[in-house]
Amino acid sequence: MAERIAGQEIERLIQLLARLPGLGPRSARRAALHLIRKREELLSPLADAMAKAHAHIRVCSCCGNVDTIDPCTVCADPRRDPTILVVVESVADLWALERASAIRAAYHVLGGTLSPLDGIGPDQLNLASLPGRLRDSRVSELIIAVNATVEGQTTAHYITDLVSHLPVKVTRLAHGVPMGGELDYLDEGTLAAAMRLRTDF
Amino acid sequence: MAERIAGQEIERLIQLLARLPGLGPRSARRAALHLIRKREELLSPLADAMAKAHAHIRVCSCCGNVDTIDPCTVCADPRRDPTILVVVESVADLWALERASAIRAAYHVLGGTLSPLDGIGPDQLNLASLPGRLRDSRVSELIIAVNATVEGQTTAHYITDLVSHLPVKVTRLAHGVPMGGELDYLDEGTLAAAMRLRTDF
Repeated sequence: MAERIAGQEIERLIQLLARLPGLGPRSARRAALHLIRKREELLSPLADAMAKAHAHIRVCSCCGNVDTIDPCTVCADPRRDPTILVVVESVADLWALERASAIRAAYHVLGGTLSPLDGIGPDQLNLASLPGRLRDSRVSELIIAVNATVEGQTTAHYITDLVSHLPVKVTRLAHGVPMGGELDYLDEGTLAAAMRLRTDF
Repeated sequence: MAERIAGQEIERLIQLLARLPGLGPRSARRAALHLIRKREELLSPLADAMAKAHAHIRVCSCCGNVDTIDPCTVCADPRRDPTILVVVESVADLWALERASAIRAAYHVLGGTLSPLDGIGPDQLNLASLPGRLRDSRVSELIIAVNATVEGQTTAHYITDLVSHLPVKVTRLAHGVPMGGELDYLDEGTLAAAMRLRTDF
């Protein structure tokens, strides 16, 4: 920027907004101006919400979810099936499964996937507590709900080995054609999997 | 959402983030998770920056820019040419011209364009003070730097009439091919204007 055109408070706000995923420098400026225009309805409440979130957010000591209570809302919910544990890579994936009402079970958030090239081994993930958690509970099925990526599948195999000595059934998400998906637009891997795993009509 | 999966502080944060331009419900969740992951480096500083911005932001009583001082940084800059006044629709446009180092002059922010269908007449814009500002200053050129839209051009004509009795030269931005623009992708109006307004090589 050739010239300082606004107070440093505004420039700092733009710089910080630009670090949000999905916002670049241009859209961060647009967001900042929008916030400034709506300072009573949006800027002030958002500042409050962020301060409150910062003050209250905890990582669930049981599953690794983030919430304002520990154990988190999901772990504390007595109506969930305690015999099923779903392993996910991230809190975002946990939220996605919950939004889909995919299952009413407990979760275990890994916090990433094994990726030796990035220096992420088993110790960098929330893996150490998993066998103990399975031993000390009534879990009879472990659903590995990781992404269908190379890293996700590598992690899935590692977990399968890790718990192989325990009396737990290990399952994984189905592969196939997504709802609404058009065959013409799907990759060959998905189509091959959908054909191989075809079910009775 | 089928089930409450996180504390209400987090859900309120997501709802407020979703009201930023460029963020929908899905990207707001992603942004919230990013903030939660980086709560010390990003969430807390952003909450502070927003609170500070809310506490300190003023609309410049002279030009309509937003800043933390009044008159704003631009109006208070003694190195600007006081004989040129640039009329812009919005603070975003003022910032865009400043980023481009397009001119070192003073500004007048309208806060919108005339749009009778949307109930926006001259009284809804920062227009009333413009003739007085021209009379009481050394301004000799008024550059109307509004968008090249129907509303922008209507507003430009209105301003030309408004100041026609004053000894001020009124100019407007050039029309033509944008830098890097390919003729094949430009609309007919731009091409016709660029041809009509061709300059010596």
